[in-house]
Amino acid sequence: MTEARKSPEHPAKVLVFGAGNFGSCLADHLGDSAHDVFMWSRSARLVEHFNTHHRNPDFLKDHEFPACIKAVGPEFPSAELVRTMDVLLFAIPTQGVRETLTALKPTLDMDNLPLLIFVNKGIEIGTHALTLDIILDTCGPEVAKVATFLSGPSFAKEIVRRQPTSVSIASLSPEHAERASDVFHQPWFRCYTLDDPIGVELAGALKNVYAIASGIADGLGFENNTRAMLITRGLAEMTRIGTTYGANPLTFLSLAGVGDLFLTCSSSTSRNYTVGHRLGKGEQLQDIIDTLGSVAEGVSTAKGLKEVIDELGVSAPIAAAVYEVLYEGKVVAERAKELMSLPPMQELELPCAGKKAKILMRKLGIAE
Amino acid sequence: MTEARKSPEHPAKVLVFGAGNFGSCLADHLGDSAHDVFMWSRSARLVEHFNTHHRNPDFLKDHEFPACIKAVGPEFPSAELVRTMDVLLFAIPTQGVRETLTALKPTLDMDNLPLLIFVNKGIEIGTHALTLDIILDTCGPEVAKVATFLSGPSFAKEIVRRQPTSVSIASLSPEHAERASDVFHQPWFRCYTLDDPIGVELAGALKNVYAIASGIADGLGFENNTRAMLITRGLAEMTRIGTTYGANPLTFLSLAGVGDLFLTCSSSTSRNYTVGHRLGKGEQLQDIIDTLGSVAEGVSTAKGLKEVIDELGVSAPIAAAVYEVLYEGKVVAERAKELMSLPPMQELELPCAGKKAKILMRKLGIAE
Repeated sequence: MTEARKSPEHPAKVLVFGAGNFGSCLADHLGDSAHDVFMWSRSARLVEHFNTHHRNPDFLKDHEFPACIKAVGPEFPSAELVRTMDVLLFAIPTQGVRETLTALKPTLDMDNLPLLIFVNKGIEIGTHALTLDIILDTCGPEVAKVATFLSGPSFAKEIVRRQPTSVSIASLSPEHAERASDVFHQPWFRCYTLDDPIGVELAGALKNVYAIASGIADGLGFENNTRAMLITRGLAEMTRIGTTYGANPLTFLSLAGVGDLFLTCSSSTSRNYTVGHRLGKGEQLQDIIDTLGSVAEGVSTAKGLKEVIDELGVSAPIAAAVYEVLYEGKVVAERAKELMSLPPMQELELPCAGKKAKILMRKLGIAE
Repeated sequence: MTEARKSPEHPAKVLVFGAGNFGSCLADHLGDSAHDVFMWSRSARLVEHFNTHHRNPDFLKDHEFPACIKAVGPEFPSAELVRTMDVLLFAIPTQGVRETLTALKPTLDMDNLPLLIFVNKGIEIGTHALTLDIILDTCGPEVAKVATFLSGPSFAKEIVRRQPTSVSIASLSPEHAERASDVFHQPWFRCYTLDDPIGVELAGALKNVYAIASGIADGLGFENNTRAMLITRGLAEMTRIGTTYGANPLTFLSLAGVGDLFLTCSSSTSRNYTVGHRLGKGEQLQDIIDTLGSVAEGVSTAKGLKEVIDELGVSAPIAAAVYEVLYEGKVVAERAKELMSLPPMQELELPCAGKKAKILMRKLGIAE
């Protein structure tokens, strides 16, 4: 898109925690939107390189960042710095959120909280905690109630090229969701607000398990019909798990739900998909992990998810199959065959009502 | 998949109306499932060729069909033939359904109706009637109430190769939906039943308009984030239109809903996508239609849909933009820019409730 940049009505001072792929691209977007952006990294090398060359030495290497973005670190941001910020943006892995928030808490001015935006996806290993739980544990309910969560189909390398992108922003406080939307919204980066952060978080974590399933199907040689089936039935499973958990089923229709599921399951470059694809081709999980270099989040989420679905007593045959392939040594092709051999069933529980349909129902003699 | 064919518990005599791409592949599937299959075509040449060579001269040309399938025609099937059938499967374009049912009605034994299965997708031009409306008009409510509708992500060329495929089967009569599922279900062709044929029909018709939008975006050079956004926001629009119409919103989460939308919007071989892609590249609609040879259903559906959304007063900015590009000569890139420049908004109307969430809400001091 070539339209002019819209300057925010209220430029904000933003501190981004994390200088990875997604943190960097969001810092870039916010800097480009005329906010005053600081990006914290634990790596002295990265901080120095970034401030000298306006490039991230580890991620999005071809991209030149706006000169207004300042990298800070490697020391944890001081209370002085934190207290000057309007927005704290957390772009760190879920497994690091508890530690970061514990360190951050003493620096927060509780009477004048900055806007907190979380973009990590995943469930905490061991506790199965959502990020909302972690915020509650470390910072208390007053912070958790106003925390916001940004999620959606958004490849970093496309965001830095201003490819049109849309995301969901969820918070228990609609006012704070709107404030986060105001910070990010541009014609090429559209924000849609929701009041169901639990659903948004569950969708973001669970999608990685279905991306493994999608990779497996492709690795087994299955094609478009099968992928569409897996995405759809995976979405139905996610919705069932989420609803039993207490999320709103419609959240799974959002950009953070079906949008991100679709992107992740159809991207042959994602780590979760790759793990699945290589499993489908017959490789062993340990060999894949050893050569992949980094861990695919779906692998650990599948384990936590198994415990959650057992606890909730919810039917999730695809997630169960992924778990058995990953952790119980089940043969992929056999397990896929079992999955397809389940008896036919009702697709969704659906009462029926409405305007035009009612007229038709009346004509049919079914409704009054 | 290599598992053994499951013979149906009750082999059925099936008459397929239409010998096109989808009718042929379903005839193939049913013949392969040990049903007794007849396939009607208006083309004497096709009937003769099919019965001699067990190949369809016009569609799926590389595929050899089971020898048990008998082509009939070109005369309209006689009352004698129709009355021996357990199942009538309609695989004809929506624009031909009224004529076919009008011809068929006098041959139906109303005291002993066969199972009626419709697989066409689309809205009748001029009347904006759904197939359920057309059945009601031509055959009366007793027939419409038990009619069944099969829809979902299912490329014909993958079905004949037994690629794992799943579809939705909807009927106002759950018993009849289950009977249709029994006829079709195999491990490699899974059927899920629904009671919302209106939602299934609307999804099947509307998806083609969003496939045009998806093609336009790709033609303009947009990438994965944008496609995921369009599919998700298109799904939200379809759901909003469907719900206002009187369908169940959850139907849009089905294989006939999101599953088929996803397949159609990501298939660069579909006619609707191709129309959009060429519009995105700057070609004129008339030139595209002239060289495409056949009409893309989404082009006429976009026109009917515009009248429906105006009548219902529902917000559908993507469908409106497609209409304006197709019929009002709006410049594609300009219209896309306008679409992206709409103000930020709430994603979905979402009340929030539930089990695990309630515990968390209680901890947050929000719920009792």
